[in-house]
Amino acid sequence: MFETAELGRSIAKRTYRAAVPHLRADLLRAQNELRLAEDFSVIVVVNGVDGAGKSETVNILHEWMDPRYLAAHAFTPPTDEERERFPTWRFWRLLPPRGRIGIFFGSWYSAPILQRAYGRTSEHEHAASLERINTFEKMLVDDGTLLLKYWFHLSKKTQRKRLKTLSRDPKQRWRVTDTDWKHFKRYDDFIQVSAGVLRETSTAEAPWTVVEGADANYRELTVSRHLLRSIIRHAEETARTRRGRRKPPPPRATKSSTHGPKQPTILTTLDMTRTLRRKDYKRQMLDRRGTLNLLSRKLEKAGLSAILVFEGADAAGKGGAIRRITRAIDARHYQVIPIAAPNDEERARHYLWRFSRHLPRAGHMTIFDRSWYGRVLVERVEGFAREDEWRRAYTEINEFEQVMSDHGMAIVKFWLQIDKDEQLRRFREREKTSYKKYKITKEDYRNRSRWALYEEAVDEMVARTSSTFAPWTLVEANDKYYARVKVMDATIAALTGALARATRGRRKKKKS
Amino acid sequence: MFETAELGRSIAKRTYRAAVPHLRADLLRAQNELRLAEDFSVIVVVNGVDGAGKSETVNILHEWMDPRYLAAHAFTPPTDEERERFPTWRFWRLLPPRGRIGIFFGSWYSAPILQRAYGRTSEHEHAASLERINTFEKMLVDDGTLLLKYWFHLSKKTQRKRLKTLSRDPKQRWRVTDTDWKHFKRYDDFIQVSAGVLRETSTAEAPWTVVEGADANYRELTVSRHLLRSIIRHAEETARTRRGRRKPPPPRATKSSTHGPKQPTILTTLDMTRTLRRKDYKRQMLDRRGTLNLLSRKLEKAGLSAILVFEGADAAGKGGAIRRITRAIDARHYQVIPIAAPNDEERARHYLWRFSRHLPRAGHMTIFDRSWYGRVLVERVEGFAREDEWRRAYTEINEFEQVMSDHGMAIVKFWLQIDKDEQLRRFREREKTSYKKYKITKEDYRNRSRWALYEEAVDEMVARTSSTFAPWTLVEANDKYYARVKVMDATIAALTGALARATRGRRKKKKS
Repeated sequence: MFETAELGRSIAKRTYRAAVPHLRADLLRAQNELRLAEDFSVIVVVNGVDGAGKSETVNILHEWMDPRYLAAHAFTPPTDEERERFPTWRFWRLLPPRGRIGIFFGSWYSAPILQRAYGRTSEHEHAASLERINTFEKMLVDDGTLLLKYWFHLSKKTQRKRLKTLSRDPKQRWRVTDTDWKHFKRYDDFIQVSAGVLRETSTAEAPWTVVEGADANYRELTVSRHLLRSIIRHAEETARTRRGRRKPPPPRATKSSTHGPKQPTILTTLDMTRTLRRKDYKRQMLDRRGTLNLLSRKLEKAGLSAILVFEGADAAGKGGAIRRITRAIDARHYQVIPIAAPNDEERARHYLWRFSRHLPRAGHMTIFDRSWYGRVLVERVEGFAREDEWRRAYTEINEFEQVMSDHGMAIVKFWLQIDKDEQLRRFREREKTSYKKYKITKEDYRNRSRWALYEEAVDEMVARTSSTFAPWTLVEANDKYYARVKVMDATIAALTGALARATRGRRKKKKS
Repeated sequence: MFETAELGRSIAKRTYRAAVPHLRADLLRAQNELRLAEDFSVIVVVNGVDGAGKSETVNILHEWMDPRYLAAHAFTPPTDEERERFPTWRFWRLLPPRGRIGIFFGSWYSAPILQRAYGRTSEHEHAASLERINTFEKMLVDDGTLLLKYWFHLSKKTQRKRLKTLSRDPKQRWRVTDTDWKHFKRYDDFIQVSAGVLRETSTAEAPWTVVEGADANYRELTVSRHLLRSIIRHAEETARTRRGRRKPPPPRATKSSTHGPKQPTILTTLDMTRTLRRKDYKRQMLDRRGTLNLLSRKLEKAGLSAILVFEGADAAGKGGAIRRITRAIDARHYQVIPIAAPNDEERARHYLWRFSRHLPRAGHMTIFDRSWYGRVLVERVEGFAREDEWRRAYTEINEFEQVMSDHGMAIVKFWLQIDKDEQLRRFREREKTSYKKYKITKEDYRNRSRWALYEEAVDEMVARTSSTFAPWTLVEANDKYYARVKVMDATIAALTGALARATRGRRKKKKS
């Protein structure tokens, strides 16, 4: 793997000096165009052998480009806020917006490589984490991100020599830390693991570039030229694709939804006549509330976090159902996130980014009033997302939820269904109630006209994203009492299950 | 203090029912106008006795208003990311943007009150923290925020009764926690401390409203009516002030800066002829770099964080001086934040908010390339801030820095000064260098024409914000070598001092 990076390549001072001014000017121009176009973001991953000039190269990039639109991130051990989400969450936090460059020092590769080199993860765990990385990177690339991965290499001999030379120089000694020597002793393990990682994660969309790190001139020119070429090429490709891709046609209902005999969907299987008497509702609700409260305390104690997702047609009663849950829980332990239009920080990033901002801490609960499923519902039906984008979203969402679930978060998802007549009745009722008027806009009536398209979208959404770790609960919501109790019951059941699994998992761990 | 909230006030069910629909409609309308005008943010502070209906009232507000533009925040013990900044930082994080309402449950009052009631803080510490709160609130109010503070009260008898009734009801028992009883035992201490706190923090701009909490109908109507009236009145006042306040006149140079004999400023006292030979520079830099590196490791170990602020005229060499520092430090321990135009999340909040986002964690360093001093420099000179705004900023900035300093952060501030001819020379030189061209815009030449105004602003800035805890270092920067070494030396001196103070402080604590 690394043989070609031990050839002793170097660039003479004179050649270097002659090349730099043009290169700097070109880099700046490319960066400026990138920034103005706001077409895509650039992520530069920097990994490799200690002493191979990683930080020197990042310094040079900072120096040669406009530092206002470039951010380098290095990673210390995760904070508790980070540890309580999933492993890649800390990188999510720092994803650059379109038009900017983010340099990820060590990045998501450091931990898996070191842990495997020190034998702290099994072969199987290691493989699983590489798979997660590939999926994560694919998601970034699919969003248009230019993902560049540089590996800085030094042969064992060169590394030893470099560390020794530095240690002997009283003025440079500080550059060599004990950790450097500790890592050096593991050189062979480290290289073997790294070679495997590079093989497994050199995908077509985001291949690794191995850089020989012995000569500063060589590595600086190599990396910055490669970076420059990649940005220019990616900008051209992005522009071409955009030109070739016309505005999506206005979405139309498919035959099955408008003509001919109506095809059954998952929604048509629901018994929409279910009701609950007020008396029973009152009694059951009081009972469920106590249960849920107790449960939420146990979850908090166990450090188990939960995500509740509420989706449903307009006026299906999401807000009411959510309030019945929150009334049972201590205000310090939940947060309700109503999803409105994204702001500019959010629009400039991957669509999942704005949800990742609100994931709960350990022992806490986040309730999303509408969610990432907007991508395959409103964005699909209204044509805000292109077909390839919303089609891809099923996989991305499944992965997003699996990562959370693997980290021990409980995910509970509700679709609240009402029928078309009931919706109209509720609209009319709201219009009559002074304080509910604001809830009804022209938009709502327009959405109604697309009922069939939404049914189709919901059907596909449930089919594609109901997983064992994050199943959908469909709620017949024509009767509010019935719906609220069903939501309560499903929430209680899901959280009880998650708690039992977590406790079991812990007991198992203790035994082994 | 609380006698008037123990009168047994209540509102009959029928009156309540008749009032609610109108009130809800009015609240929604007010909230909607607030949102569209984006003139100011509303912060609702909710504190008081346990069981007095705090969370129930917040729930009702959520129910009656549009939850998409209202966020309630409750506070669990601070995370490590929060603890490593200063105590109010966690509230800074959550400040609502203009047009929105933020409800702060427990808010910044809970900790001081509880700590004092349990005797964990001295009289003196307690007084100091109340003073901090007043300054913090003044800053919010000065920014236009409507700050409403509600105290929910219950008499001792009523509280005991309420807790007992709930405990006896098997269905409601979960509402009463052990902590509630524990706090109840301290009722008298708690009330005494609270009364003092309310007295000390009931300022003209942000007075407390004490609400009798025994009757749900009464407290809900009281709070929401008060909230409604306050929003409407504040909106009217804000609109009136805005109308009365014409666009600020284009800033003009004052007499002292354009006519008559030039008055000496702090900048004219600098000896701008200082230089350093290249040979000495090389040697000294290598030496300082080693020292700074070692120092940065010690700071990291001691968990001491540092903030470096760089200000200076265009082309004064801020970037170059910063790079000389960062080259000496491990990339994991610093972050450079170049200050460009604020984005929309930032523009919608207090001007200090966008800097508070980047404060360093314990043991880390944040280097600001331009900073909050923009308020009293470019914003003053270009008229982006009104005179009352930038005049107020001196106090706000001093307070902001003192809070950080009190928390143990080291603050080092540099003004890099060049003279007008040297600036022109550098502009011309940059225009000739292909990769430096981008640094020069028309803007730069325009700024040059305001040289005298900037000098005046710098003079006042240094005079007003050079404090013992965060002094300015003025750097004669006509000669880059001299300037860079001076910056290095001052940084090393300041950090060494901070480290010594921190170590002394710790030793003292150990002894006592």
